[in-house]
Amino acid sequence: MSDTHPSSPSLSAAPLRLAVDCMGGDHGPAVTLPACRAFLAAHPSVELLLVGRPEALAAAAGWPRCHIVAASEVVTMDDPIEVALRRKKDSSMRVAINQLKAGKDGSPAQAQACVSAGNTGALMAVAKYLLKTLDGIDRPAIATVMPNQLGGFTTVLDLGANVDCGPEHLLQFAVMGSALVSAVDGKDEPSVGLLNIGEEMIKGNETIKRAGELLREAAAHDQLNFHGNVEGNDIFKGTTDIVVCDGFVGNVALKTAEGLASMISSFIKTEFTRTWWTKLIALLAMPVLQRFKHRVDHRRFNGAALLGLRGLVFKSHGSADAFAFEQALNRAYDAARNRLLDRVHDRIVATLQALPSANEEGGDVGDTAATTAHAA
Amino acid sequence: MSDTHPSSPSLSAAPLRLAVDCMGGDHGPAVTLPACRAFLAAHPSVELLLVGRPEALAAAAGWPRCHIVAASEVVTMDDPIEVALRRKKDSSMRVAINQLKAGKDGSPAQAQACVSAGNTGALMAVAKYLLKTLDGIDRPAIATVMPNQLGGFTTVLDLGANVDCGPEHLLQFAVMGSALVSAVDGKDEPSVGLLNIGEEMIKGNETIKRAGELLREAAAHDQLNFHGNVEGNDIFKGTTDIVVCDGFVGNVALKTAEGLASMISSFIKTEFTRTWWTKLIALLAMPVLQRFKHRVDHRRFNGAALLGLRGLVFKSHGSADAFAFEQALNRAYDAARNRLLDRVHDRIVATLQALPSANEEGGDVGDTAATTAHAA
Repeated sequence: MSDTHPSSPSLSAAPLRLAVDCMGGDHGPAVTLPACRAFLAAHPSVELLLVGRPEALAAAAGWPRCHIVAASEVVTMDDPIEVALRRKKDSSMRVAINQLKAGKDGSPAQAQACVSAGNTGALMAVAKYLLKTLDGIDRPAIATVMPNQLGGFTTVLDLGANVDCGPEHLLQFAVMGSALVSAVDGKDEPSVGLLNIGEEMIKGNETIKRAGELLREAAAHDQLNFHGNVEGNDIFKGTTDIVVCDGFVGNVALKTAEGLASMISSFIKTEFTRTWWTKLIALLAMPVLQRFKHRVDHRRFNGAALLGLRGLVFKSHGSADAFAFEQALNRAYDAARNRLLDRVHDRIVATLQALPSANEEGGDVGDTAATTAHAA
Repeated sequence: MSDTHPSSPSLSAAPLRLAVDCMGGDHGPAVTLPACRAFLAAHPSVELLLVGRPEALAAAAGWPRCHIVAASEVVTMDDPIEVALRRKKDSSMRVAINQLKAGKDGSPAQAQACVSAGNTGALMAVAKYLLKTLDGIDRPAIATVMPNQLGGFTTVLDLGANVDCGPEHLLQFAVMGSALVSAVDGKDEPSVGLLNIGEEMIKGNETIKRAGELLREAAAHDQLNFHGNVEGNDIFKGTTDIVVCDGFVGNVALKTAEGLASMISSFIKTEFTRTWWTKLIALLAMPVLQRFKHRVDHRRFNGAALLGLRGLVFKSHGSADAFAFEQALNRAYDAARNRLLDRVHDRIVATLQALPSANEEGGDVGDTAATTAHAA
């Protein structure tokens, strides 16, 4: 999605810099380095900070516009949050995120966005600990895009950073999601749907009903383009640009979709490899099947945004290949050059000014380990 | 799935009778009557009570093993629950469900199971009002099956009858789901997974954590075959026979899957009809595509069970065609001849005796309109 909105406001002349956790994910540098190389070739003015064990990143030593930042430890995909947070203080994940912080002497941050394929729970916890949340945001959220029937994509959040969300959190997700889509996808007033189990206003639980009221109120104050309730199938129909939900529900929806896609792909394979005749047909149909595959290729949509932090952190799928990881870099780049951080901040401030009541309900501002869960 | 378990215990010599709401669904008698006729031909000993406007059912007047039961009104797909419940007292839906009730004089019920394609909310409300719930069941649940990668299917409940479920409700769903799968699918100890957003026990919200404890306790008392936590993708992987979840989450998962399946099917169609060459390939590939389609054909899985009531009610998809409606009749028939009602009752009683604590938490026994929502 990079470079599709040349008219969007960009950063000033100073070169934009991304920090990359090169050790994270299932494959580490074997995937992240080729992705970085391809990304650098496609974006002649961007600089990268490659974070990790110098010996593992030796191949990149001579690359232009690249700086290797040493980090001696690696957060594994199985590491509990506590290990990432309290023990591995020199992990590539942590050092990469730290590049987003301004110096204590007032010097500017080393990078404008960070990308990691490391485990989601650890990434969110470390990012939250190091960066803190923006004013007006109780809980950061994870947002990703899914392809839809219109040929575009739908942004869904939250995907598992928060369970047991209150109405005011869902409002914050809606505002942050709107900032994301307007920044990265260039849509000025993206439409927002509230995930529910029926389109009628009466449906859903009490949290959803109250969230619906808040979202309507925000829309009445021109803070949101609220469409109303949507259902699970609307994600793929493309009914709205953004679908907002509790992290538990969003994570189940995402994983259910992944499971179904995987089953369907395995069924297609089974049927096309059943006999020599079906294999022959598969050969003939290959261009058609490839085009179909491209449409639903989740690698194209890789790169989830961690929204609501004082820094832009993007999460790549742990099993991403180089092509997929490059898409996550593209998304982080688009977010940074279109000033996503400022946009989220400005939108939240404006919404809270327009709806002062929306924040009063947020009694649960400080997240505790008990109320925050993380997607694997 | 009918007739696949000839060794299962069946009802005694008296002919089994199903009540069919012939007017429900998008198509009414145009679909229900051909389905009934095919079902009768396949099951030479079953009797049907065809409920609806006699003039609309005139075609079935001379059919053997059929009785037409007059009902002057029809609950439409858009009728609010209140209309179905309080105004249309002579609806085909209501009259059909009433066939499951024993007479006040002690005479046996006219039918052992009922099938309707009418709107879910109305069907659940009317069924609950007329039949009441079984002892030990706070809230009835809706259970359906989805195909899985193993070539079998996974039973998922609840699908939208209840939002804001407590831990004890999830336990009841697990017990009822186990009774359903053992009755209809002939599996003695079907495995149960608790839908969560991570496999580790620590994940999920407080309700899910407590539900996990209850399910483990029930398993320790040999009341359940509890597998542990599962994630959305496990539904289609076939990790467990049964997946238990809150109705809000289950409804979102089901509809998300429907939406994705619909998008994929539309993409396949688009790609195969793009040019005359791809159309030719589609012709050649037709047998392969048909076999694939059969695997994921949701019509084969039509017929959701309303569990926990004092009567067996099955819900067909509103848009079902005759083939799909016949599958719902088959599922109702299998449930009735394998004494699903007794099995649910016996299992619930046994579980509550083994885990007396499980019911004490259920402070929310009487459902109110506010806590009960219904899938469309």
